[in-house]
Amino acid sequence: MVTVHTKLISLLGSPLGQTLAPQMFNETFRKLKLDYFYFPIEIGNGELETVVKAIRCMNYTGFNVTKPNKVKILDHIDNLDEMAELIGSVNVVSMKEGILKGYNTDGIGFVQSFLEETRMDLGESTFLILGAGGAGRAVSCTLASRSAKKLYLVDKIDEASSSLAKNINQRIRKCAEFFPFDKAPLKRLIQDSDVLVNATGVGMPPEIERTPIEKELLHKDLFVYDLTYKPPKTKLLLDAEQAGCKTMNGIGMAIIQGIKGFALMTGLPEPAAIMREAMENLVTGKIPSQAL
Amino acid sequence: MVTVHTKLISLLGSPLGQTLAPQMFNETFRKLKLDYFYFPIEIGNGELETVVKAIRCMNYTGFNVTKPNKVKILDHIDNLDEMAELIGSVNVVSMKEGILKGYNTDGIGFVQSFLEETRMDLGESTFLILGAGGAGRAVSCTLASRSAKKLYLVDKIDEASSSLAKNINQRIRKCAEFFPFDKAPLKRLIQDSDVLVNATGVGMPPEIERTPIEKELLHKDLFVYDLTYKPPKTKLLLDAEQAGCKTMNGIGMAIIQGIKGFALMTGLPEPAAIMREAMENLVTGKIPSQAL
Repeated sequence: MVTVHTKLISLLGSPLGQTLAPQMFNETFRKLKLDYFYFPIEIGNGELETVVKAIRCMNYTGFNVTKPNKVKILDHIDNLDEMAELIGSVNVVSMKEGILKGYNTDGIGFVQSFLEETRMDLGESTFLILGAGGAGRAVSCTLASRSAKKLYLVDKIDEASSSLAKNINQRIRKCAEFFPFDKAPLKRLIQDSDVLVNATGVGMPPEIERTPIEKELLHKDLFVYDLTYKPPKTKLLLDAEQAGCKTMNGIGMAIIQGIKGFALMTGLPEPAAIMREAMENLVTGKIPSQAL
Repeated sequence: MVTVHTKLISLLGSPLGQTLAPQMFNETFRKLKLDYFYFPIEIGNGELETVVKAIRCMNYTGFNVTKPNKVKILDHIDNLDEMAELIGSVNVVSMKEGILKGYNTDGIGFVQSFLEETRMDLGESTFLILGAGGAGRAVSCTLASRSAKKLYLVDKIDEASSSLAKNINQRIRKCAEFFPFDKAPLKRLIQDSDVLVNATGVGMPPEIERTPIEKELLHKDLFVYDLTYKPPKTKLLLDAEQAGCKTMNGIGMAIIQGIKGFALMTGLPEPAAIMREAMENLVTGKIPSQAL
């Protein structure tokens, strides 16, 4: 039951019809017997200022932010974590004593899930990152700050990947190289890379037959990470499996983002095992959504 | 589970720690299998504008208003029901196609619950109404508009009861008489009255030993209605029972207010039986609050 004592957390964005975050958080609160309640507020950038002002008046401890609000939210918060400032977008906001502070957990979600799965040495690994939107920026900046050997950046908007490379090289470490979309020597880049990251969203519904990379270019020593988990196996991941690659989808990243966001917004320890189990049960359908 | 499709309703006011409205509404939504969710937002007048602006952006169909916001809310809504305008306060706001319209269900809650209990003829009945605050104004205006024979009005602030009497006589019907607090001929007024209404709040915690009327003044032909239901029997009602009076507390009024508010805020039919049962179970403790 939500009372005046219940601490509120929301997800702000639009559309939110497909999000699993409310179930993942509420199931975790239920298991930990915490008087918190998580619910979605479907709004765009136009309503963001109004809703954030009201959140400041209410019994909130923080909120998540997703598309299309992850950049615009910077105008409406008080403090910014350094990595979020480098990435230029925010997906977690904590509220402590009336102060709103923004964080970005996309990059740490990627890197931590990747290391748990592969145990690869980042300092020995070259990454080809497709897509320099919010997710691609977060992954690239975090990899650079974690001493990845080399980053190759490609985006269909050349300005996005070139400015990202410049930003990383000037402000973090000189490790990023940009290639124009039309002229990228993809065959050579993939040959040179240890890890291919799809941060373009290509392969998500409704265009699940599309892939950002031709199957013939993949090779068995490549690790392929697709940031989406809907579908669990995109065309890219299916092609990669057939080419003998190790693969990974975005579910582990989503879980770690949830765990990090939980800790930032509640101030409580990371509920790693409980949240992981809740999310895995949700994805496999073990928890019916109406039960939460 | 609250999704982007869930229609929201809140109660705005402060303090809200004791309210049963969320449980009463959520239990009714659950029984009717309606995707609505009711939760309290504890705010004062200072935050009212900010929160109402956000409510306009969100998936709300309305909200309840209680102390201290029932008058200030008039500044932040678009339309006003005629009775709410007469009473000068609002406790229910509906939101339809972005338009906020204010209503007051205090008076109808009183009159309907009174008539269900007593079957008395309002046109033959004289009422002594103690208290000309929000509840006293609502009861008095509604009784006047429903052709009550005579209203005697007393408040410890003379200006409150005198302006209420004037307002009723000019704008509704000439049936109200005001008496100054210190000089009210209470013995005669009670002798002349069929119904005594306590709208002062005197007798509520922490001062449950207090009563607005000396026991000796009560007589067995008087019907005594105390608008509070916490405690279920105030000192006034206990005294009245001993004097042989028929009595009634505010629980029936609260239930009818809930039923009317439900219909105004959802646009659905009045869920009379279900809401009555939910509220009665709550008051008697049959529904544990944490189950809702």
